[in-house]
Amino acid sequence: MYNFRTDLALERRDIFKKINNTDNIDGIESSVNKVSDSIIVEKVKVTNKNGEKAIEKPIGEYITIDVKKMRNIDEDEIQKIADTLKDELKGLINKHVDKKGEILVVGLGNLNSTPDSLGSKVMQEIDVTRHIFKYLPQYVSDEDREVSAISPGVLGTTGIETLEILKGIVDNIKPKLLIVVDSLASKSINRISSSIQLSDTGIIPGAGVGNKRKEISKNTLNVPVIAIGIPTVVELATLVSDGIDIFIDNLQDKAKSNDYLNNLKENDKYEEVKEALNIGDYNMIVTPKEIDELIENMKNVVARGINFAL
Amino acid sequence: MYNFRTDLALERRDIFKKINNTDNIDGIESSVNKVSDSIIVEKVKVTNKNGEKAIEKPIGEYITIDVKKMRNIDEDEIQKIADTLKDELKGLINKHVDKKGEILVVGLGNLNSTPDSLGSKVMQEIDVTRHIFKYLPQYVSDEDREVSAISPGVLGTTGIETLEILKGIVDNIKPKLLIVVDSLASKSINRISSSIQLSDTGIIPGAGVGNKRKEISKNTLNVPVIAIGIPTVVELATLVSDGIDIFIDNLQDKAKSNDYLNNLKENDKYEEVKEALNIGDYNMIVTPKEIDELIENMKNVVARGINFAL
Amino acid sequence: MYNFRTDLALERRDIFKKINNTDNIDGIESSVNKVSDSIIVEKVKVTNKNGEKAIEKPIGEYITIDVKKMRNIDEDEIQKIADTLKDELKGLINKHVDKKGEILVVGLGNLNSTPDSLGSKVMQEIDVTRHIFKYLPQYVSDEDREVSAISPGVLGTTGIETLEILKGIVDNIKPKLLIVVDSLASKSINRISSSIQLSDTGIIPGAGVGNKRKEISKNTLNVPVIAIGIPTVVELATLVSDGIDIFIDNLQDKAKSNDYLNNLKENDKYEEVKEALNIGDYNMIVTPKEIDELIENMKNVVARGINFAL
Amino acid sequence: MYNFRTDLALERRDIFKKINNTDNIDGIESSVNKVSDSIIVEKVKVTNKNGEKAIEKPIGEYITIDVKKMRNIDEDEIQKIADTLKDELKGLINKHVDKKGEILVVGLGNLNSTPDSLGSKVMQEIDVTRHIFKYLPQYVSDEDREVSAISPGVLGTTGIETLEILKGIVDNIKPKLLIVVDSLASKSINRISSSIQLSDTGIIPGAGVGNKRKEISKNTLNVPVIAIGIPTVVELATLVSDGIDIFIDNLQDKAKSNDYLNNLKENDKYEEVKEALNIGDYNMIVTPKEIDELIENMKNVVARGINFAL
Repeated sequence: MYNFRTDLALERRDIFKKINNTDNIDGIESSVNKVSDSIIVEKVKVTNKNGEKAIEKPIGEYITIDVKKMRNIDEDEIQKIADTLKDELKGLINKHVDKKGEILVVGLGNLNSTPDSLGSKVMQEIDVTRHIFKYLPQYVSDEDREVSAISPGVLGTTGIETLEILKGIVDNIKPKLLIVVDSLASKSINRISSSIQLSDTGIIPGAGVGNKRKEISKNTLNVPVIAIGIPTVVELATLVSDGIDIFIDNLQDKAKSNDYLNNLKENDKYEEVKEALNIGDYNMIVTPKEIDELIENMKNVVARGINFAL
Repeated sequence: MYNFRTDLALERRDIFKKINNTDNIDGIESSVNKVSDSIIVEKVKVTNKNGEKAIEKPIGEYITIDVKKMRNIDEDEIQKIADTLKDELKGLINKHVDKKGEILVVGLGNLNSTPDSLGSKVMQEIDVTRHIFKYLPQYVSDEDREVSAISPGVLGTTGIETLEILKGIVDNIKPKLLIVVDSLASKSINRISSSIQLSDTGIIPGAGVGNKRKEISKNTLNVPVIAIGIPTVVELATLVSDGIDIFIDNLQDKAKSNDYLNNLKENDKYEEVKEALNIGDYNMIVTPKEIDELIENMKNVVARGINFAL
Repeated sequence: MYNFRTDLALERRDIFKKINNTDNIDGIESSVNKVSDSIIVEKVKVTNKNGEKAIEKPIGEYITIDVKKMRNIDEDEIQKIADTLKDELKGLINKHVDKKGEILVVGLGNLNSTPDSLGSKVMQEIDVTRHIFKYLPQYVSDEDREVSAISPGVLGTTGIETLEILKGIVDNIKPKLLIVVDSLASKSINRISSSIQLSDTGIIPGAGVGNKRKEISKNTLNVPVIAIGIPTVVELATLVSDGIDIFIDNLQDKAKSNDYLNNLKENDKYEEVKEALNIGDYNMIVTPKEIDELIENMKNVVARGINFAL
Repeated sequence: MYNFRTDLALERRDIFKKINNTDNIDGIESSVNKVSDSIIVEKVKVTNKNGEKAIEKPIGEYITIDVKKMRNIDEDEIQKIADTLKDELKGLINKHVDKKGEILVVGLGNLNSTPDSLGSKVMQEIDVTRHIFKYLPQYVSDEDREVSAISPGVLGTTGIETLEILKGIVDNIKPKLLIVVDSLASKSINRISSSIQLSDTGIIPGAGVGNKRKEISKNTLNVPVIAIGIPTVVELATLVSDGIDIFIDNLQDKAKSNDYLNNLKENDKYEEVKEALNIGDYNMIVTPKEIDELIENMKNVVARGINFAL
């Protein structure tokens, strides 16, 4: 079992390949589709138990939309990425519910902490219709779908596990499908705000920042769960450890290999690094200084993608 | 059945008395206690079905803490009002649960609309402990109580009735008592941000602004519900109608009474006024221009009152 | 001198016409242009001192874009209104500066009070370029214009008059034109979030809510000032007074005219109404309960209109 | 010239001492005062040009209040730290202005980016009085001081250097002293939200995150400038470079020294590390996941400290 420290299936696949020095993994299928000069869609399918074990992600489909960095993106590009998201999302939705199946959109994370605010911000932009079906049915047509949305908050503020809150709501209002939006942690800085991962296997909130919460998925809620996640942070320990790996590689080339260095590479350097940097009790995250602008742009992309798909 | 257009029991009592030209209502008991020069506590008890029918509020206790306007209030006064709130709240809590009974604090309303943001803002300040009991039990003592908190959002944003959301959560985490915080509508402008009403009979969100939602109470949730509400708005139609009432009174004095004026007073003038002012589809509210500062001060009072009481 | 209690030139014109029972005002020219089924542009030109005196607005052009209520507006309609705003704004800009003339966009109002937050929210969306000209000149072309933006806050929070803050900044960075965005007060509820007024004569912040600040205009700043304003509130006293006017009209028809009623119509009823309703020290405003959603939509319209025009 | 990558004078002093392997620096005086078990005040005085050159901070006084981590701080502790801040701040203020000297409080940073929001949030809590002196002089006494407050925003949003904005305002309203509040960058993670630095030598916004803006000080504004700063982030490159330093130290001990390692320690590893980690164009910051709660507590401490001192 590796310590992947990333929520992205394609990063996990690459780590597994590198460590095992292989180009093929039984149970993992990949395909790449270039939508435009700036948008690439990569699909990773986990097809059997072996694949599941390899990258520690359940059997299912993981779609990653890669885009150029979102900082100075214009209206046109937001629209193009939202369209791509809409297409992929529609594909996943249609696999699990029919055109009328009620959907609950869940925005995870903490509105007051910029790098973790994506889910809550998207949730506020969702065009909800469920109450119109109930109170003003004359305003909806046969084409419309019941959509509701909720932002359950975070454990530190509510004292309640997100899964517990959702379980209560799902049992009570009985949607046919959940779409869960969350900020993710990735392993690599240049994926921050540049990748959108979709999957139909649910989500484990906080998995990427060593803050694991209970899984939100069909296993725990009895309805299919589509997760949409965008990396907004890298965990500090991950980054420092990667930095030291690269550093040791350089050392081995330039300073001549020796047994100590060889040994080092095989051990987990996280604890040592953590101690050396005096990181202490806090869970440190690495994020761009401009994260507020990036979140604003990502919010627009994801909210439009979802609203168009529904 | 009167159209009270206020959430405050004492305003309803006074309206009933005025209309029926009486000083006593069977089933309604009142008492006043001056805590300090600027803080008065008035209790209205509804003791039987007749009282219930008279003011259309369920049997139970309604405590109103009246304070001077909160605009330029200082740290000391915030503390004094919070202390009064704490005392009254503790009294109500002890009536329903023991010292260890788990409590869920619910902040109603819409964070993005200043006059309706009180509940959500208070919720963010609540010292939650439930997760510490669960994950870090070494940090809590036998004296501590499990406290959790949630802000379910509003129907227009979620598409889900607040009661439905709370029902799911209450069924799942099984608290022994709910404390619900909400912005209220009052009938009179000078109660805005000057009265805090506590009761142990639950709440009907939006009741004061003609936007009635399902009751949140022991009847619907099977746990006792203490409601803490502060008026932040007056409904426009209420105010205009009251203004016209006063105006007609003046007219009758000064312009000589006539049959038309006498008739007018007996009819509901809301629809006529609404039409005349071209108010249209929107639900108009009246609120002070300085509502943001008032909400900030009220948030501090209520959050401290609750945190000290728990 | 009338007490217009509205920031909108066309409402003032209509009030003047009604009171003086005339259809023409010397010094006031009007024209109406229907852009689409839901967008109407009405221009009021004040051409001489007489017009200026009549509606108490300086000589200049007042353009009002009227749109259907913005609550459930979709992306397409936002775009259409933004395009209309862009066209009218470009017209005004070109009257005063050339294509390269530096522009400072000023967002007035209070970010923490929803009905007054429009200016500050728009300001955050403006595509500023001034710093790029200065620090990264390789990224701008000959076509680009220097744009900066500021949100000076409100007197109650800063202790400083908006004009004093702007004067300092304008003297220091020397823009060629200011575009000032603010929430306005109108006289009529159905103009709230439905009218966008542009003018090139500057603005008096708070003029519509009895809270007059120093004029922001060419007179005070020595650069031309284009104002973009959208009504978000009606002053309570205005509304109640109008309601009573209509009420008296009805009374006169139905209850027979008498001297007292005739007299009443000629006097200012504000003070009497204010006293009767016990409005007290606060400045009360009337606004739709849904003002947060309306502001969000208006922010998108105005920010895009400005960004496209610059 | 060292690359200190910290805004804190005492960290710079310690770096200088370590590099030069000395315990005394000519021109630097230090003293430590333990206020309570959890509050320590350390003063660093730069007394001459040599001290100035050593730590690259102008002649003046640098006071650092060190507190235990602020995450679960209670009301009492907030009050104690605020009292300490008040005392030290008063000392600095009295050095530069008399009891009636008008003060302008400036909150730097970006309200929309949690780790950078401290200054703007503090600014909103300042009790401003300048407008009361001007418009309601009957409400102020001879004891009161004129206080105003402003939050000028950040270059990326306004397009204008903070110094340019402040210069305009200072020239226009002519305060006798500025108090500038900002988030800082420190070199060490365990100073985040645990140190409050006061100085009377002004501030260079962004100096700690490689984003240097123009100095805000008596040199540039002609009025004394007291800066209050709290570290909320560490720059990523700093942290990684420090981590690698420690790592190399370990290597040298355990893996036997060699020439390559010795060389490495003498060079700047920033560029190499930056490249290796593919950090790219963004300016990456490291901050605790709980930064929103920490900022809330720090805001209360600093706002109270300032309000009590004024």
